[in-house]
Amino acid sequence: MQFDHADPLRGLRDLFELPPGLIYLDGNSLGVLPRATAARVQQVVQQEWGRDLIGSWNSAGWITLAQRVGDKIAACVGARPGELVAADSTSVNLYKVLSATAGIVQAGTRSNASPRRRIIVSERDNFPTDLYIAQSLARERGLELRLVQAGQIAEHLNDELAVLMLTQVNYRTGALHDMAALTQAAHAAGGLAVWDLAHSAGALPVDLHGSDADFAVGCGYKYLNGGPGAPAFVWVHPRWASRFEQPLSGWLGHAAPFEFSPDYRPAAGVARYLCGTPPILAMAALECGVDTVLAAAPLGGMAALRAKSLALTRLFITLVEARCAGHGLTLVTPRDNAQRGSQVCLSHPDAAYPMVQALIARGVVGDFRAPDILRFGFTPLYTRFTDVWDAVEHLRQVLESSEWREGRFNQRAAVT
Amino acid sequence: MQFDHADPLRGLRDLFELPPGLIYLDGNSLGVLPRATAARVQQVVQQEWGRDLIGSWNSAGWITLAQRVGDKIAACVGARPGELVAADSTSVNLYKVLSATAGIVQAGTRSNASPRRRIIVSERDNFPTDLYIAQSLARERGLELRLVQAGQIAEHLNDELAVLMLTQVNYRTGALHDMAALTQAAHAAGGLAVWDLAHSAGALPVDLHGSDADFAVGCGYKYLNGGPGAPAFVWVHPRWASRFEQPLSGWLGHAAPFEFSPDYRPAAGVARYLCGTPPILAMAALECGVDTVLAAAPLGGMAALRAKSLALTRLFITLVEARCAGHGLTLVTPRDNAQRGSQVCLSHPDAAYPMVQALIARGVVGDFRAPDILRFGFTPLYTRFTDVWDAVEHLRQVLESSEWREGRFNQRAAVT
Repeated sequence: MQFDHADPLRGLRDLFELPPGLIYLDGNSLGVLPRATAARVQQVVQQEWGRDLIGSWNSAGWITLAQRVGDKIAACVGARPGELVAADSTSVNLYKVLSATAGIVQAGTRSNASPRRRIIVSERDNFPTDLYIAQSLARERGLELRLVQAGQIAEHLNDELAVLMLTQVNYRTGALHDMAALTQAAHAAGGLAVWDLAHSAGALPVDLHGSDADFAVGCGYKYLNGGPGAPAFVWVHPRWASRFEQPLSGWLGHAAPFEFSPDYRPAAGVARYLCGTPPILAMAALECGVDTVLAAAPLGGMAALRAKSLALTRLFITLVEARCAGHGLTLVTPRDNAQRGSQVCLSHPDAAYPMVQALIARGVVGDFRAPDILRFGFTPLYTRFTDVWDAVEHLRQVLESSEWREGRFNQRAAVT
Repeated sequence: MQFDHADPLRGLRDLFELPPGLIYLDGNSLGVLPRATAARVQQVVQQEWGRDLIGSWNSAGWITLAQRVGDKIAACVGARPGELVAADSTSVNLYKVLSATAGIVQAGTRSNASPRRRIIVSERDNFPTDLYIAQSLARERGLELRLVQAGQIAEHLNDELAVLMLTQVNYRTGALHDMAALTQAAHAAGGLAVWDLAHSAGALPVDLHGSDADFAVGCGYKYLNGGPGAPAFVWVHPRWASRFEQPLSGWLGHAAPFEFSPDYRPAAGVARYLCGTPPILAMAALECGVDTVLAAAPLGGMAALRAKSLALTRLFITLVEARCAGHGLTLVTPRDNAQRGSQVCLSHPDAAYPMVQALIARGVVGDFRAPDILRFGFTPLYTRFTDVWDAVEHLRQVLESSEWREGRFNQRAAVT
């Protein structure tokens, strides 16, 4: 296809092991295996663990792996070296971060300190695990979680605001928040801004410093291609990192981990957001995944990835509207480039699930999100324009045939 | 050596990839690579992730891996299927567990409920990360951590006791607590008992139900051979599991994770102690590690492993005392079998560190623990009696030569 021929990033697809014949539009759920990962993981298993054993904590740099991988992720999200670590899961990291914000608010460090300042504002349609963690933290710390519609966030940013907690790209709609504007609004109201970058890190330019965000967490196994359940990451603005603590005070976040002192002294900076011993095999795979994003740097980096991502999603929308009209599909994702992440979601009132299954049976992998969403992710590192074309053609054939009505697709679990 | 010839477990060594010529007495820090692990991890990377991608959450059973591995670990520690999950790190799991105990105490569920019941009793020489987590939790929940000497625990179990939190085998001395007696004493005082099995799971018979313990956590990368930073585990007695919550309320611990409901409803049982998406590569390696322990089952299981472990440590003590006398070494580990884990620690007033380094240079890997401990772990799955013999001979030669005085061994980090 001509678009692929003209694509300056087309060579990056060779960094991945894509199953032949598969059109994979689910990299926003689990990124594809990078070609370098298998050999690297084997090296860790057989040489670093198998041969060098305990010595590898030093000789192979395991002890600082969370920071090394963190620095690489930092380069993808507008953070500086030393400000971000790879660790734990997104949920666990969000708990750390929200705990720290509760401490900041309690200390009255933000302007306009007030006992009324006890509301965590989030989006009702935010990814549920973020809401669960916030509910739990709010209950513990005497805060209150207030869930609002995406369009009504601004009006809830007032002198009751403790924290605005948002996921930059909505997992179900693909809608992209304006991080800089919302952070500014939260700050203007005297609150803090916490961002979950699960569906944006590695997919589009994120500018944590430019947006003046306070805290961020994110996922390693979506657009960072770190493998199933890869460690997540946590970023803390330097203005907070060394001043407040988080309660998961494990030995790796201690100022002197090998002192084995019975008293906890938090490390300076974001290192205090480390907790227990990191899973080295998973961390090594994550590093290979992040390296695939960094490989775009000489080709224009995140800006070039974003340009391709928008071109892919725009083409998908255009083709679906031109070729799949009249079958009851509705575009859920914003049409405006500035409001769209790297995915496109369609809704169908009663057949979204069997349609997704019929597509998977044809080798076009998207996913279903209850109750009525067909979700398609477009990872610009390895998705081709021809994949978009072919996916829409399959969708058209599914819609025009009866195959999705045959009821042979059973409800099954899937992971966002 | 005749002891090895007579050892009914000698064949289990073949389950491991031991570096030729190395005498590895550090399996209590990082267990050796099982022979099955490399191929299994490759299968997960190349087939399950690389080829089957997102579908593997169902087809490869990733979604229930935490429970499957948990059931296998349960079989090693006297727990029943469905009571234990593999998840997160030991530190994070301890935070969950202590949070739940705080809720139980607050609810006045134990007999003798009293507002004075706010003390967490632990051992001053407990592994620091456990103390750090307890300090943090105590500060949050208005409890107080009281650190006492190992011999004085009983006298602190009174009507102020909320929780007795102990590590069954001390990481620095190898001393083994009587889990049943101390749990009973904690219960008699109206408190709860939380056990860290980091240095006992896979090393000796643990009987969580027989001891009537309330909660337990443990480590996957020591005697369970799960690999560097392997996921840890958490066990909750069924009398508590479904009645109290823990605050790391991630999506995987939800009663219906795929409902994507904005409200958290904890799953029944120990599944509510799951939080975020587990690191599948690390979890697969952990399963291979646990399988090496289960491989002892037809040969007598944990009892047989314990018998061999005691024979190994007893031989080491006997030989050190016979052949290394007069060099200032002191036995730190209890001589009584009933009080000894699977390691032997020696102290030396001023040369423990260079001695450990001199041994490592000779291919005898133990480790140093500040300020004066030479620590040697004896994993019965792969340690031979001839290794014990040779290790002591090397130690004798180090002591009688000047090599440890040469000062060429610099202080380096190491992970317990």
